Amino acid sequence: MTFPSVEHQFEYLKKGFAEIIREEDLKERLEESYKTGRPMRVKTGFDPTAPDLHLGHTVLIRKMKHFQDMGHTVIFLIGDMTGLIGDPSGRNITRPPMTRAEIDANAETYKEQVFKILDPEKTEVRFNSEWLEPLRWEDMIRLASRYTVARILERDDFSKRLREGTPISMHEIMYPLGQGYDSVALECDIELGGTDQKFNLLVGRDLQRDYGQKPQIVATVPILEGLDGVEKMSKSKGNYVGIHEAPEVMVKKLMSISDDMMWRYWELLTDLTLGDIRALKDSGRNPRDIKLELCERIASDYHGAVAGKAAREAWLRDVSQGQIPENLETTVAADPRLGKVLAVSGLAASGTEADRLVKSNAVEIFREEDKGKVEVQGPGQRLETGTYFVRAGKRWKRVVIE
Amino acid sequence: MTFPSVEHQFEYLKKGFAEIIREEDLKERLEESYKTGRPMRVKTGFDPTAPDLHLGHTVLIRKMKHFQDMGHTVIFLIGDMTGLIGDPSGRNITRPPMTRAEIDANAETYKEQVFKILDPEKTEVRFNSEWLEPLRWEDMIRLASRYTVARILERDDFSKRLREGTPISMHEIMYPLGQGYDSVALECDIELGGTDQKFNLLVGRDLQRDYGQKPQIVATVPILEGLDGVEKMSKSKGNYVGIHEAPEVMVKKLMSISDDMMWRYWELLTDLTLGDIRALKDSGRNPRDIKLELCERIASDYHGAVAGKAAREAWLRDVSQGQIPENLETTVAADPRLGKVLAVSGLAASGTEADRLVKSNAVEIFREEDKGKVEVQGPGQRLETGTYFVRAGKRWKRVVIE
Repeated sequence: MTFPSVEHQFEYLKKGFAEIIREEDLKERLEESYKTGRPMRVKTGFDPTAPDLHLGHTVLIRKMKHFQDMGHTVIFLIGDMTGLIGDPSGRNITRPPMTRAEIDANAETYKEQVFKILDPEKTEVRFNSEWLEPLRWEDMIRLASRYTVARILERDDFSKRLREGTPISMHEIMYPLGQGYDSVALECDIELGGTDQKFNLLVGRDLQRDYGQKPQIVATVPILEGLDGVEKMSKSKGNYVGIHEAPEVMVKKLMSISDDMMWRYWELLTDLTLGDIRALKDSGRNPRDIKLELCERIASDYHGAVAGKAAREAWLRDVSQGQIPENLETTVAADPRLGKVLAVSGLAASGTEADRLVKSNAVEIFREEDKGKVEVQGPGQRLETGTYFVRAGKRWKRVVIE
Repeated sequence: MTFPSVEHQFEYLKKGFAEIIREEDLKERLEESYKTGRPMRVKTGFDPTAPDLHLGHTVLIRKMKHFQDMGHTVIFLIGDMTGLIGDPSGRNITRPPMTRAEIDANAETYKEQVFKILDPEKTEVRFNSEWLEPLRWEDMIRLASRYTVARILERDDFSKRLREGTPISMHEIMYPLGQGYDSVALECDIELGGTDQKFNLLVGRDLQRDYGQKPQIVATVPILEGLDGVEKMSKSKGNYVGIHEAPEVMVKKLMSISDDMMWRYWELLTDLTLGDIRALKDSGRNPRDIKLELCERIASDYHGAVAGKAAREAWLRDVSQGQIPENLETTVAADPRLGKVLAVSGLAASGTEADRLVKSNAVEIFREEDKGKVEVQGPGQRLETGTYFVRAGKRWKRVVIE
């Protein structure tokens, strides 16, 4: 296996991470992989619940893709052991254990969604029941002996709950060990996760060291802000874009973000390098057009390029249509040529001005009937019989061609 | 199965415990057992290491016997799971895992020792690997979910170490759960242990409640002070009596304890009821004689009644011998009759005083040759030709009979 240069890989891979523990280690591991031709093993863990992903979730999945793009092996790990147990105390009837069939069905739903971003050929889908299910009391004691209570209780939420006297069940402090053991079982080189997973990812790093493996690199992705640019993107907040939403809906929602947020979305939701994004920023192009390009890219990711382009065009049409004022003055034009129409309706002071307006793309024409846009070709263009809304610069008229 | 009256059982059983949690529960459980004819299940756990028991250990084993005496089922539980694991971190090479064969050999050594006190017919010997070995990750998580971290950390040594920053390994806090689960697996009615085990025994109580069982009664025995009456009896302190020591050694060591300590030993090392012991205390008998009776009892427990009696006599002989002063004045007596011997040697002022001394048991005679005691029969008794040490009251003489 041959890989792109280490420098190139490093620059591409580090984009969009909140933290990498540690960058030097990543570089070193990339060098090793480059020299030996051995792809890195990149783990990311997911809950076994039925997923309905939105763009917030794709930040992590896209980082997985970037490792695939560079030739590395990505492990899509489904933490099914937790699901198979359900509420271990058996007290919470709303969290019954899942059956194998339910977990498998959820895994299929997952694949259907994440394989819109990831390459199925380069993805190892694994379930942690594979190595956790055969563990015995003895193995579990051995595992637990590798970690101290004080260190587990350093996890923010644990220390907070302990301080406040909110009960922590013993099994809760075992879970990070199970998750860490996943990295041992999979012999991971790097684990990716949200910033809220940092502690658990570090446990894997510690345990691997203890089991005589090279400790994995830990890389966390930031939380994506929602369309409002303030709160975390989430279904319940309504500030999200679901990956199953129609391309037109995606574009419409995404066009509402601020210009600042747009740059963050470029970074976290596309494959562009930081250099590409900087170039875009420095291009002097209209921000609305750059945003529209982002929208088309995202819609295309989930619905294909044709649908993405169509959605972009639909948005433009909608926006233009949205501009047609009500109660326009009507002109009846005998001559169907566009130049004449503009002049007779008073939208142009003369035939010469009409020519100039058309040539400078300041003219738009919509059919009244379906608000469909009529392509502007030139001042000599003949409009068909019918009723139109015509814009020239900032002025509008309703025009009837007899 | 029929049992002695609940009142009788309760009085006999509660003797010698440091604490019973709770006495009312014990009474209730005894009543239930009495009514239903179902023996109580009484668990006591032991390490799988090779035992070399001393009297300090027998306090607990004797309480087990008392439950057997009352007709209940005693479970001698060997915590072999811990031994099979060894040092779970694999770092401590001095604590390698034990093999099944080693554990079985240790179990045999245990039986050989504890069956000097317990009735083998009424003892269930069990190993906790029986139910801990098949536990899976899943079962372990379920078990752990029944207990909170805060509650485990309440254990004195844990809270102390956490406070002081001394590391506690995660597996250490799992052990009490395993031990508690033993009570669930065995469906125990009561668990016995040292006061230092109280916390762990209470975990069993809690877990049983959580698994829908009636929570076990917890009864702890006090630590037995050693021969010095101050420190805990232990090999390393040298203040112990091993159950394998010769009966003469036992008696000799035990006769050195204080009179106060003697009453504690009566309570903790014999089957006498508190009533019996009170009667003994109120008898007005010489404390030395009562102590000697205790010694004989204890020696008989481990070596049989004949050996116990012989050891008591040997002690008496030794003690008397030990009193013979050095460099005694020698009298040669022509008349071998004891009364005459006492008079001629000056041990008695007259024949009348000699008679009185003999009759009041104030006279002792030892052969010089082997320091063997010669039975005193009366003033007219004829001593054989030879050399003797003779005591009359506090005075001694060496006497040669020609």
